[in-house]
Amino acid sequence: MSAIQESAQALEQAIRNSEEFNGLKDAYDTVMNDEIAKKMFDDFRNTQLELQQKQMQGEEITEEEVEKARKVVETVQQHEQISKLMEEEQRVNDLINEISRTITKPLEELYGSQEG
Amino acid sequence: MSAIQESAQALEQAIRNSEEFNGLKDAYDTVMNDEIAKKMFDDFRNTQLELQQKQMQGEEITEEEVEKARKVVETVQQHEQISKLMEEEQRVNDLINEISRTITKPLEELYGSQEG
Repeated sequence: MSAIQESAQALEQAIRNSEEFNGLKDAYDTVMNDEIAKKMFDDFRNTQLELQQKQMQGEEITEEEVEKARKVVETVQQHEQISKLMEEEQRVNDLINEISRTITKPLEELYGSQEG
Repeated sequence: MSAIQESAQALEQAIRNSEEFNGLKDAYDTVMNDEIAKKMFDDFRNTQLELQQKQMQGEEITEEEVEKARKVVETVQQHEQISKLMEEEQRVNDLINEISRTITKPLEELYGSQEG
């Protein structure tokens, strides 16, 4: 195994053992084990994905759709378990972003060094 | 320092020391130290970025622009040092993608586990 593969696997393990990942896992399981919460969360996800896809394809998003999305967000935010899940997702996202910044530093330094 | 930060920094160091990263660095320096190659490479990058931005904003890309981009790619591919740099970039990209797949495995497993 290369040094990179070894380090990447150690990092994967550290993520798996982290407070952040386990907090997310607990919050996710709680929502998935509650039929109503699961349905609300799935609706929320699907609405988000639909809008993202439209945006990426350069399709227009109607006022109606924006309004629908706003309402779905409002509803899930009022649900304690889903709101908790979204917080935990944000924490793990932040963690992954921080890791990305660290491991792409060599590239940033290289491509930033001769600019301007 | 957390276990994650330690592992991420070890991974950063492994990338910095890798054959792939050092191959890219050499190829990049070679192009940057050759005035003509540098200009060609910068033109190529700018053309790519412009088209990407238009695409992301859902703007139409004209036939003329496609043709211009095609010619720029053709020109840089014929330049030995730039073509080498593009190959090395691809190798490092592949490496980073493999690392990403490894460290996001816990998330994939979590989100994949209750689908369907």
